[in-house]
Amino acid sequence: MDENRFVGLDPEYYLNHNSYMKYNHMEITKISPEESEVRLRVNPDALNILGVVHGGLIYSLADAVTGLTARADGRRYVTQSATINFIGNVNEGYVIAKGILLRRGKAVTLVRCAIEDENGRLLADGTVNMFCLDDETGRE
Amino acid sequence: MDENRFVGLDPEYYLNHNSYMKYNHMEITKISPEESEVRLRVNPDALNILGVVHGGLIYSLADAVTGLTARADGRRYVTQSATINFIGNVNEGYVIAKGILLRRGKAVTLVRCAIEDENGRLLADGTVNMFCLDDETGRE
Amino acid sequence: MDENRFVGLDPEYYLNHNSYMKYNHMEITKISPEESEVRLRVNPDALNILGVVHGGLIYSLADAVTGLTARADGRRYVTQSATINFIGNVNEGYVIAKGILLRRGKAVTLVRCAIEDENGRLLADGTVNMFCLDDETGRE
Amino acid sequence: MDENRFVGLDPEYYLNHNSYMKYNHMEITKISPEESEVRLRVNPDALNILGVVHGGLIYSLADAVTGLTARADGRRYVTQSATINFIGNVNEGYVIAKGILLRRGKAVTLVRCAIEDENGRLLADGTVNMFCLDDETGRE
Repeated sequence: MDENRFVGLDPEYYLNHNSYMKYNHMEITKISPEESEVRLRVNPDALNILGVVHGGLIYSLADAVTGLTARADGRRYVTQSATINFIGNVNEGYVIAKGILLRRGKAVTLVRCAIEDENGRLLADGTVNMFCLDDETGRE
Repeated sequence: MDENRFVGLDPEYYLNHNSYMKYNHMEITKISPEESEVRLRVNPDALNILGVVHGGLIYSLADAVTGLTARADGRRYVTQSATINFIGNVNEGYVIAKGILLRRGKAVTLVRCAIEDENGRLLADGTVNMFCLDDETGRE
Repeated sequence: MDENRFVGLDPEYYLNHNSYMKYNHMEITKISPEESEVRLRVNPDALNILGVVHGGLIYSLADAVTGLTARADGRRYVTQSATINFIGNVNEGYVIAKGILLRRGKAVTLVRCAIEDENGRLLADGTVNMFCLDDETGRE
Repeated sequence: MDENRFVGLDPEYYLNHNSYMKYNHMEITKISPEESEVRLRVNPDALNILGVVHGGLIYSLADAVTGLTARADGRRYVTQSATINFIGNVNEGYVIAKGILLRRGKAVTLVRCAIEDENGRLLADGTVNMFCLDDETGRE
């Protein structure tokens, strides 16, 4: 519990406890309950068969950053469902994902994700429903 | 072109040219235009802050396996849009993703993905629209 | 409460209390917690500018039938989120929507929807997350 | 063809050729290739069993308004896939749907939809992929 409150504030701690994010070279550049940001510097481990960033990794940025925006309230969440639309791609530079709060509910928090290249060109756009694990009742 | 036809048939070749999939320890166990399969043995690099497989990686399996089902016709595709619903998770054993063809179109191929643990319990269910890059006109 | 239990069993009662479904000529042909069915006979009020069934109405069948499958457990639900993929369309005959349970949770029930024409040709495929309004705590 | 160009500019003509929209009392208040708007005055035919606007009708507004934004370029489109997240609901006043262009492609146009009540409260948020029927080749 204390741990989770802490997580909401310290990117380094969060990354050190999130093996997948760290292994895939993600950087957390902002955590806030309104808008968080995660970045990825395009690297050889990130590429698909066409030589651009794998869609799975682009989605992973969306999942990570929307989770951070949800978790920034100090509660624990799991991803419930997500939709992503892919618009463009890159083979170098940074991919920057923003998780923008649409609605914070008791049980479900809806966060939009916009993913851009370092020039502000939209690469993907999606929405993620985060389901909260913490409440008085342990429901669901 | 010839390369892409080949890709559709040889999992090892495909993985060796898909850095992200290989880096994240994915295994291709079946490629067919009707139903493909990708597996992941749960490993430390795969885990999120709750100690189970990161949702981004689960989606990545969905993206990969639906792409294989689409590509098994010998054409090149990019992921256009996707939805995934998360149902369960695991911290050990195998995660197995199946990409089941729903509709093959000239431009768009729709593939469903069912992701299960090694006991056949459903972990996630989604659909992915794959957009074909190859046609006579180079459209889109 | 009693009313909701009743609703789960009697299609006529349900339709008479669901103005939009009735106004749009929907027929409930099966209500069950595993798989429900709603039909629409294609009629002039159902058509879009291309002369086939409006996508909004096709989605409405999906929303209705997945809601029935959720509600068949006797609880009240609202649609939380939904994705639909459109595959084909018709300008006559019946459109038949099936709501197939994927997972029933305490708070969220996930139902898949397959929509077919009267010859069994797939017209649309989607998934709907239904959020339950009833529990001990009134959470959310 | 000429008809479609015209459609993009004249709401009354469009409604008169879109039976479902007209039958369900939708009003077109703006058509533009960047952002269109469709409204619905809440009426008895619009309600679900809980006495608020049926989710199918809310989605229908999203489908209609995103289609208008796509079609405003003078081409014909069908809805390919859509996701909608439901956030709130009303039992009176206006429901206002805006279709905001995210990306116009040769084959696929992606439009976001924000649906609000008359006080600007967000009721639903979604994205719709519109597939273009017109090009030189008749592909797909």
